[in-house]
Amino acid sequence: MTDTLRIGGGHVLRPDMSVEEADVLVDRVSGEILEVGDVPGGDATLDASGGLVMPGLVNAHTHTAMTLLRGYADDKPLETWLREDIWPAEGELTPEDVRAGTDLALLEMIESGTTGFADMYFHMPEVVDAVDEAGLRARIGHGVVTVGKDEDEARADNEESLEVAREYDGAAEGRVSTAYTPHSLTTVGEEFLVEFTEEARDEGIPLHFHANETEDEVDPILAQEDQRPLAYADDLGMLTDEDWVAHGVHVDDTEIDLLAERGTAVVHCPASNMKLASGAAPVQDLLDAGVTVGLGTDGAASNNDLDMFDEMRDAAMLGKLSTGDASAVPAEAVVEMATAGSADALGFDAGRIEEGRKADLAVVDFETARLTPVHDYVSHLAYAASGADVRHTVCDGQVLMRDGEVQTLDAEAVRERAADHAERVTERAG
Amino acid sequence: MTDTLRIGGGHVLRPDMSVEEADVLVDRVSGEILEVGDVPGGDATLDASGGLVMPGLVNAHTHTAMTLLRGYADDKPLETWLREDIWPAEGELTPEDVRAGTDLALLEMIESGTTGFADMYFHMPEVVDAVDEAGLRARIGHGVVTVGKDEDEARADNEESLEVAREYDGAAEGRVSTAYTPHSLTTVGEEFLVEFTEEARDEGIPLHFHANETEDEVDPILAQEDQRPLAYADDLGMLTDEDWVAHGVHVDDTEIDLLAERGTAVVHCPASNMKLASGAAPVQDLLDAGVTVGLGTDGAASNNDLDMFDEMRDAAMLGKLSTGDASAVPAEAVVEMATAGSADALGFDAGRIEEGRKADLAVVDFETARLTPVHDYVSHLAYAASGADVRHTVCDGQVLMRDGEVQTLDAEAVRERAADHAERVTERAG
Repeated sequence: MTDTLRIGGGHVLRPDMSVEEADVLVDRVSGEILEVGDVPGGDATLDASGGLVMPGLVNAHTHTAMTLLRGYADDKPLETWLREDIWPAEGELTPEDVRAGTDLALLEMIESGTTGFADMYFHMPEVVDAVDEAGLRARIGHGVVTVGKDEDEARADNEESLEVAREYDGAAEGRVSTAYTPHSLTTVGEEFLVEFTEEARDEGIPLHFHANETEDEVDPILAQEDQRPLAYADDLGMLTDEDWVAHGVHVDDTEIDLLAERGTAVVHCPASNMKLASGAAPVQDLLDAGVTVGLGTDGAASNNDLDMFDEMRDAAMLGKLSTGDASAVPAEAVVEMATAGSADALGFDAGRIEEGRKADLAVVDFETARLTPVHDYVSHLAYAASGADVRHTVCDGQVLMRDGEVQTLDAEAVRERAADHAERVTERAG
Repeated sequence: MTDTLRIGGGHVLRPDMSVEEADVLVDRVSGEILEVGDVPGGDATLDASGGLVMPGLVNAHTHTAMTLLRGYADDKPLETWLREDIWPAEGELTPEDVRAGTDLALLEMIESGTTGFADMYFHMPEVVDAVDEAGLRARIGHGVVTVGKDEDEARADNEESLEVAREYDGAAEGRVSTAYTPHSLTTVGEEFLVEFTEEARDEGIPLHFHANETEDEVDPILAQEDQRPLAYADDLGMLTDEDWVAHGVHVDDTEIDLLAERGTAVVHCPASNMKLASGAAPVQDLLDAGVTVGLGTDGAASNNDLDMFDEMRDAAMLGKLSTGDASAVPAEAVVEMATAGSADALGFDAGRIEEGRKADLAVVDFETARLTPVHDYVSHLAYAASGADVRHTVCDGQVLMRDGEVQTLDAEAVRERAADHAERVTERAG
């Protein structure tokens, strides 16, 4: 028996980036796509006329509760910004604050057509509950930092990350999956990386960590280990085809080849990399080498929104500017990065509109001034659309937003609670 | 006698980038701001509660009717893109096409809080009519290209530019002003630049031209004249404090000093410069030297939207990336560039919310997920807001958009007509 949802009357973006007039029939019980084509009927319907049904966007690297610190401090270099502003404020975050910030992030994501994400943060049980209620798909991890901690604290932090990964894998009716998430190669001690990566491998838990974001993350490893950071990570057993690294800005050709060989994905975060002046990842080179590239917004404090349409545009523009080649990182590539690329990085069976895939979808309204005329749907997704153009959002076959109205969250209450928590956090942080 | 409009209940962005709780009282007859503060009454009102009243954005370099070619061709270098795609299509544009494309651009601008712009295109009487009806403020010019034309055609093109500048200055109840707009230093013959610039000067008509957009615009002048392009332009009398140049990507320190000395403004177009891989203008250096810097989207075919919020974000991000300094081109700078900077470049008595200035305003709704919480209004304008967050748009004291509904244009009819004309143009262009 099926309980079906027909998303009909519009155009559909297919995995090969072609666009056709078609309906999408979804099984709301299994949460899967049943059929794409001229489909009659359906137990329920979503109107896609004048719109494009596209795979739901997947934000493959973010720190959701940082929405509370959106605009709290800007226009500073990464190290200063973290030390003077972000870390002191984060030190004040209670589980209730994280819940309020995560709810705000999920609201913003649903409103802008994002159906899945990877989170690396703390107080993760709150995140799991939030995801359960809001209805998105997520791969979550408790972020580990050991620098500045004594042996016991450092060990406990790593253990918490593995414990979270064990406990919540498969939560929210299977929409939550997990990862072991050491913050980076320079903020977690080597002995812990070795021990807990091995433990994660034994239990089939993938890794998600920051790598080569700034030169300050590369130089110390070069100096101490006499090897590039990703060669070092590989020696520690941290690069497999289940894992993904965020940023990958300062990677050289040997590291690109290594990523391709190991099947490890890179999640590109162009807005954050520009805003913090971190640099430009060699995205076209990564794609040419066959590396899986996903796309992420990073936290809202360094972006400052979670709109994946902005991120696609930023990725295409930065790809051209940094290579001096206007044909680099074209529209098709960024749309693929934000959908199939990110989904593959996170191990989601989504990101493509085809039979049997998870029904994680967004319907973009093309009947707006900024999306007129329509010479090319894919160009518009990459260069002209904004999150505000999303009409409906569907995840796991469930309608999370219908006609711009989020169904699973009380938008006004979420905004008010987040504003209230943000005010109290910044008061406490002084 | 006055007929007043009170924009009340919200916060107001002042010229020094401070934000205060205040109302704005506008004289609808003179189109000027009468008072900013705790103002009772008003013959009509606009609700700004939960919002920020900011100066209307000024798009200081665009080619409005190019909205018809939005997404028509992407991911190509400037020269190839122009020769293979844009020029053949533009060759097919009739006055009716230009009108349809301009209306679409004006609709998009009003919807995203832009109240003024500079246009360089052709069939300019159509643009003037469109501006008159839509209610925006514009400085318009007929773009001149003489390469590939015989002497008579070239002369006629220049004469048309001056004729348009004479005829339409002060049109639309003073909302239209004009400029002589030779396309660039490499596409208009020197003899014409000299002759018609002198004529423009005699009649008090300012100049607007592309300069130093790509290295291909710099190298030929260096080779032929043995001087930098802006030194060459200065020798031809083309740099005064009434004029502005678009792009200014490849300017060296001597040219920055020259711009500062002459008082000539530069209009930065970061999205177009990234998308066409043209390079990064030295915006922080220009600001440090005291050059007036405005902001523009360029045409929609190389952007691909006319959303000045995107442009502010792009300017801030590109300014940091290109200098490696996250404190370069901060939020305040880009908001000022998009408002007062652009207004000063174009000679509009607008861009600042203060008594006596033209009442060109936008009200941004901050009660949205992506603008929550509000630690800093200016940060949100630069980094998080999108054109879709604009609630009301006012120009010259008249309400052009109220609660998201454009008052002066029939949005659906404009979109349909533009789509229809776009289809016919591209069919003719093959």
